[in-house]
Amino acid sequence: MSLEEIIQNIKPLDEKAMDLCAKRWNTLGKPLYSLGRLEEMVIQMAGIYRHPMARPKKKAVIVMAADNGVVAEGVTQTGQEVTKIVTENMTKKNASICVFSSMSGADVYPVDIGIVTEVDNPKIIHKKVKYGTDNMAKGPAMTREEAVEAILKGVEVTKELIDQGYDLFATGEMGIGNTTTSSAICAVLLNESVEKVTGKGAGLTSEALLHKIQIIKDSIALNQPDPNDPIDVLAKVGGLDIAGLAGVFLGAAYYGKAVFVDGFISSVAALVATRIAPICKNYIFPSHCSNEPAGRMVLEAMDMEPYILANMCLGEGTGAVMGFTICDYAMKAYHEIPSFEETKFGTYEPLD
Amino acid sequence: MSLEEIIQNIKPLDEKAMDLCAKRWNTLGKPLYSLGRLEEMVIQMAGIYRHPMARPKKKAVIVMAADNGVVAEGVTQTGQEVTKIVTENMTKKNASICVFSSMSGADVYPVDIGIVTEVDNPKIIHKKVKYGTDNMAKGPAMTREEAVEAILKGVEVTKELIDQGYDLFATGEMGIGNTTTSSAICAVLLNESVEKVTGKGAGLTSEALLHKIQIIKDSIALNQPDPNDPIDVLAKVGGLDIAGLAGVFLGAAYYGKAVFVDGFISSVAALVATRIAPICKNYIFPSHCSNEPAGRMVLEAMDMEPYILANMCLGEGTGAVMGFTICDYAMKAYHEIPSFEETKFGTYEPLD
Repeated sequence: MSLEEIIQNIKPLDEKAMDLCAKRWNTLGKPLYSLGRLEEMVIQMAGIYRHPMARPKKKAVIVMAADNGVVAEGVTQTGQEVTKIVTENMTKKNASICVFSSMSGADVYPVDIGIVTEVDNPKIIHKKVKYGTDNMAKGPAMTREEAVEAILKGVEVTKELIDQGYDLFATGEMGIGNTTTSSAICAVLLNESVEKVTGKGAGLTSEALLHKIQIIKDSIALNQPDPNDPIDVLAKVGGLDIAGLAGVFLGAAYYGKAVFVDGFISSVAALVATRIAPICKNYIFPSHCSNEPAGRMVLEAMDMEPYILANMCLGEGTGAVMGFTICDYAMKAYHEIPSFEETKFGTYEPLD
Repeated sequence: MSLEEIIQNIKPLDEKAMDLCAKRWNTLGKPLYSLGRLEEMVIQMAGIYRHPMARPKKKAVIVMAADNGVVAEGVTQTGQEVTKIVTENMTKKNASICVFSSMSGADVYPVDIGIVTEVDNPKIIHKKVKYGTDNMAKGPAMTREEAVEAILKGVEVTKELIDQGYDLFATGEMGIGNTTTSSAICAVLLNESVEKVTGKGAGLTSEALLHKIQIIKDSIALNQPDPNDPIDVLAKVGGLDIAGLAGVFLGAAYYGKAVFVDGFISSVAALVATRIAPICKNYIFPSHCSNEPAGRMVLEAMDMEPYILANMCLGEGTGAVMGFTICDYAMKAYHEIPSFEETKFGTYEPLD
């Protein structure tokens, strides 16, 4: 399937299911609209799953792992070998995301979409496009074809997990250097200064932050990505993990499933996906707001408000799976709060 | 025990336990400080429970139920009988808070601190101070002695539950008319206009809202509560539910346990408690931000930022028990994320 076919075939939400769902909320024994955004979430889910009583059951967090050539410029504190180590740790329940996802009842699927070395682990989904991107400070991070291939591999992974029964997704990533690529994409797509959208990632000093900003500026100046062409931006100053995640958002939308965004890097991938196909936004839910300086900015650019404020910036999908829990509360409320009839205290009148 | 003794004997947090806890976070295999407010929450809990590995185990939501004489002025859409019906529904797993607390692993304890009619239900904790407050539009809602008695009964309930093994609390309430009393307290203690801090509660029309605002203004003008005397404000224009909840906050602090605030009404009770004994703030955690207009204002007055943004305004403790879940994530992360040694990728250096 081509990217064009996917983009063309994402359906609008089912308005009838949403309408019936909204009406059912008003029969439940509680003040009208008093569950606010939880009610809205369930209504949107009804539209996505095309049924007023839809309740997703099986949750997966898809963690795209890839390396970034720009790490050669010294923009990170840790070496590239950490990408592979942490990704393998995810298969041994030895990573932060495993702790978080066990709490949220989700399964973790790490994907090698572009780790720089050979990965030989049957528990990692192999979708390698190339052995890490090229150094964007010397030329484009990848070709347009490679970027599209990575997006399509993201769609593929999503489809394969749907075939295994998963119907609710979260995004995560692991890739040393990926706050650098995310800030680069963010600066170009949002037309913001690099200084404003760049942070310390996993622990840079203030001096190293200045260097990171300079490298991003140089990379943008050298590659001249076209802000009106999200795939061009992704290819020239992005990463394979971000491309793969953009594919997860597009794939989830195409196959009619909801997906929770994690923090900064995942949000940038969602931004890319919504620039490629604005309609996919209907299938995407925010989770937390990253502590990276541009975390909130990227969400706002998509007109999304986080559900959770915890100043986290760990990545791996740790915030996104907390979004699953918000969803669980919302669904439980919708399916289990007794009706006005059962509560025996009469109905509330609609607000004027 | 007198209120004075409680106020005098709330301990500062255990700095040593907090320091050890902060140091242990830095040994875990993740970027330093990358769990942001989850790390801070666990550190604060270490200070509260006076041990760097503290992990509260048994959760209760204390729901104070009371009636408000001011309902006679037509400030609500539903009648007073609903207070008792919903409170009894809580004992039959037939109320919204039951759905939310089953998700968060908490037990629900409704307390009759001032329901207007006789309540004969062994599953409701009986701490009735009086049969509903008096109508604050005609005179003080209660005497100072009654307000203090209600606070002390809140402390008592907390102690009784601690004796049963509970070590983590959330606050909830049920009382027709209690957004009216909460707005009145809020206006006086925060020195804000009544218009700014008053909302539609459980579904008033715009016209009825104007009437509610007028009644609150009249009640404040008539009773002249002293903004520098929180108990005076509570007695004159407050409610027994709010007083009981203030007692829960003070009691939790006195007995060294953490407590999550729910939405607007609970936050106003927390504001009263922190005005009575500022030190108790160290034991209080926010949860969500109520959709009532003054929800955020009251949290900000206590220098608290919500963890959850869901525009909820159901009450009963439904948002507070979601705070329990944030705590569960934080504790699970602290206790289960492997150390740098186990993750085998070396340590991150501290930020400059």
